[in-house]
Amino acid sequence: MAYVRKIRVFVPSSLCAGASVLLELSQAHYLCHVMRLKVSDRFLIFNGKDGEWEASLTEVGKKHASAMAERAVRAQVDESDIRLLFAPLKHGPLDFLVQKATELGASVLQPVLTERTVVRRINAERMQSQVQEAAEQCERLTVPECKPLLELSEVLSAWPIDTPLLFCDEARQDQGILRVLAAEPQRFHGAGILIGPEGGFSDHEVEMIRSQPYVVPVSLGTRVLRAETAALAALACWQGVMER
Amino acid sequence: MAYVRKIRVFVPSSLCAGASVLLELSQAHYLCHVMRLKVSDRFLIFNGKDGEWEASLTEVGKKHASAMAERAVRAQVDESDIRLLFAPLKHGPLDFLVQKATELGASVLQPVLTERTVVRRINAERMQSQVQEAAEQCERLTVPECKPLLELSEVLSAWPIDTPLLFCDEARQDQGILRVLAAEPQRFHGAGILIGPEGGFSDHEVEMIRSQPYVVPVSLGTRVLRAETAALAALACWQGVMER
Repeated sequence: MAYVRKIRVFVPSSLCAGASVLLELSQAHYLCHVMRLKVSDRFLIFNGKDGEWEASLTEVGKKHASAMAERAVRAQVDESDIRLLFAPLKHGPLDFLVQKATELGASVLQPVLTERTVVRRINAERMQSQVQEAAEQCERLTVPECKPLLELSEVLSAWPIDTPLLFCDEARQDQGILRVLAAEPQRFHGAGILIGPEGGFSDHEVEMIRSQPYVVPVSLGTRVLRAETAALAALACWQGVMER
Repeated sequence: MAYVRKIRVFVPSSLCAGASVLLELSQAHYLCHVMRLKVSDRFLIFNGKDGEWEASLTEVGKKHASAMAERAVRAQVDESDIRLLFAPLKHGPLDFLVQKATELGASVLQPVLTERTVVRRINAERMQSQVQEAAEQCERLTVPECKPLLELSEVLSAWPIDTPLLFCDEARQDQGILRVLAAEPQRFHGAGILIGPEGGFSDHEVEMIRSQPYVVPVSLGTRVLRAETAALAALACWQGVMER
């Protein structure tokens, strides 16, 4: 079956038959100038709550566009909760991580500041627009929530105690992630994945992390993985177990 | 435990105690100018056959350097055979794919030409140096073998019949990859992963692929994955099952 990438955009408004939707400037540009849609042409919209709808373009202006939701094509489904905690990276690897974490279904992206993090800031607006675009293109029905950058200790102290946090320790002495997940998949339906910075966690941080009751240390194998590779490998394994 | 990235280089020569090793220009530059090693400083070398050795720098010239292997620090281990077949991509995604496939243990990188492949050439030298660098940095004991670009039909007709080829079909109607692998891990110790181009495989190609007796179609989940994401997700799942 030939596969064609669908034209779809995320809108923050409610969706029902006949609902009018205002599109952002960048979306108007994408639909009208890049995809060359005209009034009455159809495309897909979703809002993270009401499933996916077919919509038709109703108005095209210089700086805006409007559409009307016509019919539901996919129902909203409950998605398992998988939060990715990661130390900020340089732009190239970070862009890669944000895009691919979205493709691989991360529900939350939580950047954390650690001792050895070199990049100490996150461009939140940039991250938000990257996840939205990646969500639109990978056909998911939700957009990952991007949280503000927090200190590792803050994130750990606020972490819900009944949500397991998979700690991908570079020391690589722990049980393989798949073995841990496959042994009790139910336990990990709502979970987090914690990935450290390029320089790894400090001894003090490792102690702090491992002392939390909800932390589950796992190994990602025998090779040393870059931070963004580790994040994606862990997510792919989690998805594989949950989607089986 | 604090983690420090080790200084290691790949050399094509045999290694035993006292063996003299000539280092490539780029390696000499890396060791002497980037890592600032001096004569008698130690670093790690490997050759894909004799394990990992500690070596000391014996000579530093303007355009070359030599070292002497001193003692074995890691024995060569048999690695499972996992070959990645992929359509060439644009430079950005291709660089990521090559680097991360190496981190995730691919033993062979086989680029394949398909009907919808936009990029019709591979820079073999560039790919070779990328896999070598990635292998050095991720501490693996082997360097993936980079094969020349071939037509899909050629690769399929030459494929060993007893080696399963995991076909990640974009139609996404098949059983999840983890379910397939975990049901019979022994069967997949030596295996291949086939990923299509951004535009997907043509109907004709899908038919040709699925008609091969060694092909095992698998799904990578409900979202649409970019080619490089699919490759890495599949590799990560395979590694997870094999390394458990």
